[in-house]
Amino acid sequence: MSGGAPALDSAGFPDISYPNFAFDILHRDPSSGARLGLLKTPHGTIETPAYIFCGTKASIKALSPAQVREAGADIILGNTYHLMLQPGADLIARMGGLHKFTGWNGPMLTDSGGFQVFSMGHGSVADEIKGRNRNQRKSILDLTEDGARFRSYLDGRMWTLNPEISMDLQRKLGADLIVQMDECPPYHVPKEYTENSMRMSHRWADRSLSAFEKTHDGTQALYGIVHGGIYKNLRVESAQFIASRPFFATAVGGCLGGSDEEMYGILEWCRPHIHPDRPVHFLGIGRFKDVFHSVRLGIDTFDCVNPTRIARHGMALIRGAPGEKINLYNARYRNDPEPLDATSDLACSNSFSKAYIHHLFKAKEMLAFQIVTQHNIGVISRLMREVRAAIRAGTLDSLEKEWISS
Amino acid sequence: MSGGAPALDSAGFPDISYPNFAFDILHRDPSSGARLGLLKTPHGTIETPAYIFCGTKASIKALSPAQVREAGADIILGNTYHLMLQPGADLIARMGGLHKFTGWNGPMLTDSGGFQVFSMGHGSVADEIKGRNRNQRKSILDLTEDGARFRSYLDGRMWTLNPEISMDLQRKLGADLIVQMDECPPYHVPKEYTENSMRMSHRWADRSLSAFEKTHDGTQALYGIVHGGIYKNLRVESAQFIASRPFFATAVGGCLGGSDEEMYGILEWCRPHIHPDRPVHFLGIGRFKDVFHSVRLGIDTFDCVNPTRIARHGMALIRGAPGEKINLYNARYRNDPEPLDATSDLACSNSFSKAYIHHLFKAKEMLAFQIVTQHNIGVISRLMREVRAAIRAGTLDSLEKEWISS
Repeated sequence: MSGGAPALDSAGFPDISYPNFAFDILHRDPSSGARLGLLKTPHGTIETPAYIFCGTKASIKALSPAQVREAGADIILGNTYHLMLQPGADLIARMGGLHKFTGWNGPMLTDSGGFQVFSMGHGSVADEIKGRNRNQRKSILDLTEDGARFRSYLDGRMWTLNPEISMDLQRKLGADLIVQMDECPPYHVPKEYTENSMRMSHRWADRSLSAFEKTHDGTQALYGIVHGGIYKNLRVESAQFIASRPFFATAVGGCLGGSDEEMYGILEWCRPHIHPDRPVHFLGIGRFKDVFHSVRLGIDTFDCVNPTRIARHGMALIRGAPGEKINLYNARYRNDPEPLDATSDLACSNSFSKAYIHHLFKAKEMLAFQIVTQHNIGVISRLMREVRAAIRAGTLDSLEKEWISS
Repeated sequence: MSGGAPALDSAGFPDISYPNFAFDILHRDPSSGARLGLLKTPHGTIETPAYIFCGTKASIKALSPAQVREAGADIILGNTYHLMLQPGADLIARMGGLHKFTGWNGPMLTDSGGFQVFSMGHGSVADEIKGRNRNQRKSILDLTEDGARFRSYLDGRMWTLNPEISMDLQRKLGADLIVQMDECPPYHVPKEYTENSMRMSHRWADRSLSAFEKTHDGTQALYGIVHGGIYKNLRVESAQFIASRPFFATAVGGCLGGSDEEMYGILEWCRPHIHPDRPVHFLGIGRFKDVFHSVRLGIDTFDCVNPTRIARHGMALIRGAPGEKINLYNARYRNDPEPLDATSDLACSNSFSKAYIHHLFKAKEMLAFQIVTQHNIGVISRLMREVRAAIRAGTLDSLEKEWISS
């Protein structure tokens, strides 16, 4: 945590204030960059480091808001891209915003929509982040300084997304935490492309801030996104740029390289240049080991679809298990009378045998998805509680050994 | 409720006793055949008339046992046919029986497996009951005095089901209430076929009782099934036969004709000849109006897959609505901020707008199934509570007007 406060030109922005939001850093781990914080929003205050679970289409798949809460989740997100297409931001606005529409009354984040626009056309989100992309942008019709035009994956209709539209959509959706529009460039592009893309994302950052400021009523707070791909000088420049702007918080986005080492390297480069007093979000991080690594680099919040997505493929997260999970489709669980986690307080984890859950998956019973999705959220929520306690106690290393099989 | 106790030959059966079970008739409606009862089982006592919800493959689709309970259900059933094929009765026995396997700790019923054997091969269960069957028995290889041989719908494997095997399977599954093996003949057959089938089901009744008696340990109670199709003299004969045997309770099964009138006529014919002190179950009845009609004929329990099945097609049961339900896929609900039932105590019914549920169905979000399935169980459970109160108060007619749109 070196990196003093940035002193760059703030480009004449009014100093947007966020009176209904706050981020208080309560404690710093002397042996790493890990920190404990309190992130205050109009829908409640959460302790950080925290995990943000994905409710892509205004629902955490297979769970009610009460079940998400019961599992220990403090904050969830919705995806602007999916919601703009179905059911539409105007409809959600008429229904009182995402909180009222979904029944989730805690803090909520929406992304800008840009990430999905740039990733949906060419392979999975994971492919994109992990650098497995083949640089095909089938659904994007047009990408210019203004923004992107793309076809809906639902009905082929043409849409435009740009910084002003993204701000407008996110205003209508009404999440507490909202995110600037950015371009998320593919992995297999020349440095020049990444650099130009980053600079455009910076201009889009300023346009996002201008649009945000015009309708700012204190109910929402805006994140800027650090880009620069796999290039150190670009990451540093981007972190400094975003720190110079009146964002409430910082997200680290864009391509994170093709390996764990590259991803952590990128985080290490930009971390000292990120605004030190603002919450830092790391996009798309799902594994236990990523959580430990990122927390040590001073990341305050994460999100990833992984815990809920793998649940639907029969994968239950298990503390200390090889690979961090078990596959409940596996025939070894057919006769297994043990629950997923007898030490858990959650009925999904402590009351159903693996044999029963195995049966439910094999019989295609929807209850399987409910049980394992809630279990996985419960496991990650417990991980985050224990991580926070370990930061306080200075015992992150020993906690990591409990969670990660060597 | 004329019909004195039957005085037929009991065929030399030992008088099987059910010390852990009881059926107490608390009150009779002076203006109809409706009655209030208490049905005691080793897993609890329920008030009757009661609705038995279908957990076909050891799960009420999309709900946890706690959610089923929360919705007000008192008793559920599992289908022996589905469970024998997947995951298998031996496995469920090793896991401690259906109660332990599923986590449902209330009263539970299993059927004999025969109904599905005879209906799965040729159209839907509803087709069969409603007389829309085309008399094709594709999956049945062989039907003899011994029993039926059929192919599994899962993997084509050959299975045999007969009275002894059905009793053995139901012992292993371990439900409180179990049912004799019967043949369920198609609708479009000559009277002679129905008569021969009924007599075979009577012989299977006796074989079921013999097999039941050999392993009777007090944990389960056996239902006999009244057959005879759409023929009055056969229905009367069958009701008298079943009453003469030491069953704990009586189910009215087999083909119920092609219209409501035929179905109610069949019930009226046999009702006076059914054992007057035993609980009476009516198989496969789902609509509000069927419940009112059947209750007046002295039926104590019902089951039907309808409330949970239609939920998965977007249909929410609504007291007093035309057709008893609304279709949440309908575009009229896209902007509807009202919940399914603001007067309900259940979050599924009172806390989500129809607009949100409409969105969830359109977006194929699993939460839709959870919400509407729980809602429908809640509606039927409330119907049964109100029906019981109305029987006590003598107000069944006015209650029916509240529930059924004229």
